Amino acid sequence: MHSFSVTIEPRFYETDALGHINNASIAAWLEIVRMKFIASLCTDESYEAQSWILASLQIDFIAETFFGDDVIGRVAGAEAGNTSLTVFCEMHLGGNLTVKAKAVLVFMDDKTRAPTRVPEFLRKQLGASS
Amino acid sequence: MHSFSVTIEPRFYETDALGHINNASIAAWLEIVRMKFIASLCTDESYEAQSWILASLQIDFIAETFFGDDVIGRVAGAEAGNTSLTVFCEMHLGGNLTVKAKAVLVFMDDKTRAPTRVPEFLRKQLGASS
Amino acid sequence: MHSFSVTIEPRFYETDALGHINNASIAAWLEIVRMKFIASLCTDESYEAQSWILASLQIDFIAETFFGDDVIGRVAGAEAGNTSLTVFCEMHLGGNLTVKAKAVLVFMDDKTRAPTRVPEFLRKQLGASS
Amino acid sequence: MHSFSVTIEPRFYETDALGHINNASIAAWLEIVRMKFIASLCTDESYEAQSWILASLQIDFIAETFFGDDVIGRVAGAEAGNTSLTVFCEMHLGGNLTVKAKAVLVFMDDKTRAPTRVPEFLRKQLGASS
Repeated sequence: MHSFSVTIEPRFYETDALGHINNASIAAWLEIVRMKFIASLCTDESYEAQSWILASLQIDFIAETFFGDDVIGRVAGAEAGNTSLTVFCEMHLGGNLTVKAKAVLVFMDDKTRAPTRVPEFLRKQLGASS
Repeated sequence: MHSFSVTIEPRFYETDALGHINNASIAAWLEIVRMKFIASLCTDESYEAQSWILASLQIDFIAETFFGDDVIGRVAGAEAGNTSLTVFCEMHLGGNLTVKAKAVLVFMDDKTRAPTRVPEFLRKQLGASS
Repeated sequence: MHSFSVTIEPRFYETDALGHINNASIAAWLEIVRMKFIASLCTDESYEAQSWILASLQIDFIAETFFGDDVIGRVAGAEAGNTSLTVFCEMHLGGNLTVKAKAVLVFMDDKTRAPTRVPEFLRKQLGASS
Repeated sequence: MHSFSVTIEPRFYETDALGHINNASIAAWLEIVRMKFIASLCTDESYEAQSWILASLQIDFIAETFFGDDVIGRVAGAEAGNTSLTVFCEMHLGGNLTVKAKAVLVFMDDKTRAPTRVPEFLRKQLGASS
């Protein structure tokens, strides 16, 4: 898998009254990382955001995130199942790990809205065994 | 025009690091008030949210809004133009006026996506001169 | 543990271009349920939101959530550890389970900002063995 | 006044079920532009976000904003009053004007929380007559 990271600039309104970035904004940022990662795999193919439905999301909040410095969202790994894609993300602020997350996405057929097999060109890039 | 108000319960994540509700959340709350107000006028008719496009929004922040107590969003007036609807809102917290706002919405034809005349049943309720 | 549920009214701006409520809004709603649940346990004691830091969040998206009908957020269980509180939540829409979630919160001493033992009055209500 | 613009990358969760960026996200983006603009004026001085309170916000939605391409947020003008700062913003997407906005901020004394005179180094940069 290629190395992939995204820079996220915290926005002031994403803070909360505890003075740090609210956990729901972290969940939202993870969507940015996932979507950009998937788009990066699809350079030769059309990409449809609606093809991927989030099935589960696990977030470990390792350290607080504050407004002021950029956050690096990095994809630490990705695995294709038959109809699913598992993406492991990390976030770093100032060189420190702040967030670890695991998202499971299901690939949907745009017409039938049923889970369907992850396309071969994606499986290849992710090193999935066929 | 009938009297109309909505109770909005501030959510913790809508605060920001200044300790109060962020201004963008106030803008968001105003959408709740507007949509519920319009829905309240449409009891006998089908209601389509996509029929109304926000053309302009003016918000005066009179006093800070804090997490903890309910906010009352009240429609203080509404006027139908030919293809537009102007809605005047106020928000109160603990009996004090916190926000005054004016929104101009344009009524869109669902098929042509062009501005179209505000329906008569709405005009009547708003006391618009035909 | 007492039965606890909260009614959440989806807001239009919480939808996304896929036509359903965005996953980050679900994460945000879970904070509402958790905070109200903890507040409900603290009727005789002062309650400080800043005493609880979210350590991890697991969300299973069972079914899509749409704008239009109320969502019921229910606490299905809660367990006190030494310095932590694990809260199990479910969300239902129109009688169907849409979300299952597990949050682990850490109780912080307001002055030292270090994890500290969950107070006895909370442990008792949650049936924790001392 | 120096020329100032910020690039904003729309995030998928900022769309709504109408398929475009929700108006409340536009209000939120305007805060990003304002804060970065003020920070750009304060290179030689300490900058305190809490020194500026939003007093009013006027947004004209000229055209819809969609997910996919970057938005340019530009400060089209700024005027210092005695204790206030008026900032005129525009947003462009693909070369087209999508948003015009005017924000009035009040400069607060950090200790007394009362409006106080906009500092001279800011007034000079904005070309305010003393």
